Amino acid sequence: MMDYFIGIDLGGTNIKAVVVDREGTLIFKKQAPTMATLGIDHVIQQIAKLIIECSKYKSHIKGAGVTVPGVLNLQDGMVELMPNFPHQWKGVRLKEKLEHATSLPIYLLNDARAAAFGEKKFGSGRPYEHFVCMVIGTGVGGGIVSNGVLLMGSRGVAGEIGHQVVDPKGPECGCGNAGCLETMASGPAISAEAIRYIKQGIPTKMRDLVNGDLNQVTPEIVNEAAEHGDRSAITILENTAATICRAILNVIAILNPEAIILGGGVGQSDFLINKITDQLHHKKILFPASLGSVQIVKAHFNHLAGSIGAAAWTMDNLTREQKELTIN
Amino acid sequence: MMDYFIGIDLGGTNIKAVVVDREGTLIFKKQAPTMATLGIDHVIQQIAKLIIECSKYKSHIKGAGVTVPGVLNLQDGMVELMPNFPHQWKGVRLKEKLEHATSLPIYLLNDARAAAFGEKKFGSGRPYEHFVCMVIGTGVGGGIVSNGVLLMGSRGVAGEIGHQVVDPKGPECGCGNAGCLETMASGPAISAEAIRYIKQGIPTKMRDLVNGDLNQVTPEIVNEAAEHGDRSAITILENTAATICRAILNVIAILNPEAIILGGGVGQSDFLINKITDQLHHKKILFPASLGSVQIVKAHFNHLAGSIGAAAWTMDNLTREQKELTIN
Repeated sequence: MMDYFIGIDLGGTNIKAVVVDREGTLIFKKQAPTMATLGIDHVIQQIAKLIIECSKYKSHIKGAGVTVPGVLNLQDGMVELMPNFPHQWKGVRLKEKLEHATSLPIYLLNDARAAAFGEKKFGSGRPYEHFVCMVIGTGVGGGIVSNGVLLMGSRGVAGEIGHQVVDPKGPECGCGNAGCLETMASGPAISAEAIRYIKQGIPTKMRDLVNGDLNQVTPEIVNEAAEHGDRSAITILENTAATICRAILNVIAILNPEAIILGGGVGQSDFLINKITDQLHHKKILFPASLGSVQIVKAHFNHLAGSIGAAAWTMDNLTREQKELTIN
Repeated sequence: MMDYFIGIDLGGTNIKAVVVDREGTLIFKKQAPTMATLGIDHVIQQIAKLIIECSKYKSHIKGAGVTVPGVLNLQDGMVELMPNFPHQWKGVRLKEKLEHATSLPIYLLNDARAAAFGEKKFGSGRPYEHFVCMVIGTGVGGGIVSNGVLLMGSRGVAGEIGHQVVDPKGPECGCGNAGCLETMASGPAISAEAIRYIKQGIPTKMRDLVNGDLNQVTPEIVNEAAEHGDRSAITILENTAATICRAILNVIAILNPEAIILGGGVGQSDFLINKITDQLHHKKILFPASLGSVQIVKAHFNHLAGSIGAAAWTMDNLTREQKELTIN
């Protein structure tokens, strides 16, 4: 008899839902646009509706994991901070509300931590006991696996590698610090650089690809131009790679992982991954034991990373609780 | 019947030995100057001799821990790198040689990791499940405790927080990178700043304290002058505190600890710890969940931190191995 697990990834634009089995096989998926402006209760109802729809699709659904793009209080199943949502989510008892609405056990997790956990269970992280997953997209999130276990830290916030400072003279970050990795190597930072190049009148394929419409400049456009040999686009991605390498070197010094897994819309660009790998190999470093053998690996999951990770997290928690019940 | 454990801390200047019981009570201590220039075998004999002396002092000695100031291959009980020793220690099978010479089980560990572990077992780290110990002295080492466990990383090198880059435009580091915390906030960096002030002819108590002899300038002199209100010394330590704060903020973002424990000759200065605490409290930060509740704590052990940590590490390893034997 097979068990199934639901994973929900709450994003600013879409809510994604999946059902997976114990091997991580995708059984069902669905997504809906997040109606964030309609208020907190509306969004919670949207999530609950998706969970109920998933749970009707298969019997033997054991529980649901829900990721949020923000900070959670895991002890109380409560939201601490959702910076990109229009309402004040702080204090919302999301776990309790969803358990009440769905009659299923609910497990919350930050989205980037979920992505890291999903990679460990079913993706590129399977061969490694020690890795750091960097999720580089609109923001820069992360998750740390050490000795095969996802590090949570004292309040479930471990892994916020996007808020390490890579240049103390860098731009201000929403977090109150300046020069955080997130301000310098995320999607918006890449787009802003591209727009700066285009505005300066430097000849570049990036301008042609958007027909001069600066609103259409995205990291994907920069990536496409770079792959076609555009000098400006290549420079932007080389600089981005250099910034990410600084952060990776810090992370390697602090955590001594076997691998760095790069995920997210920006982080999964082969062009960028190759530049990062090249630049790291050219670094001299005191500790061959730390850097020498570190693999730079592309994440296995892309836009479903969070939801599959949430399902994996649910499976893991339920299995552990079951074991504890059996022992006690 | 009490069990006892030996801890040896191999330093560039001295080898320190302790015997402790299961509660960490110091039963015996001894130290000898490290005869590093006489060669590897001589130093190993020195360590073995100290262990044998310790083991004669008490019966029921269960094993000995030995820390080294460098990188170890823990799987093979071998030294990878000891940058401050005159001979090529790479490849020396330290564990095997010491077990042969002493007939005791030997456990190796990096010195800063040992300090962190000792703080967890018997010192300032006891109340915390998640903390980072920063050992700031001639170099800057560290150890990470997460979920009550010392993080080792894939090759036992996790915790090298001194090699995170705090200023990419900073001075070159022996590790091949530039602007590492170790180049900017260690004892030698503080002394160099003090000498620069004195040479510039700026009136400062530091000059008087060393009677104009620049060779006598140490971080202790700077600390003493600062405590007596000397403006130059205060500025040096405020800048050092600011640099350490940058590193601490990175570490908090990445690891979400409950506490930062500051150890080492430089790190245990009350003046510096107060400056660090003040500066951190003035930081705005996105994640109240990470920073808000972090305690800045002085390490309990000072010059015996490594040896007591080594003894604690030995106790822990032997207890675990014993348990595994009992289960299997």
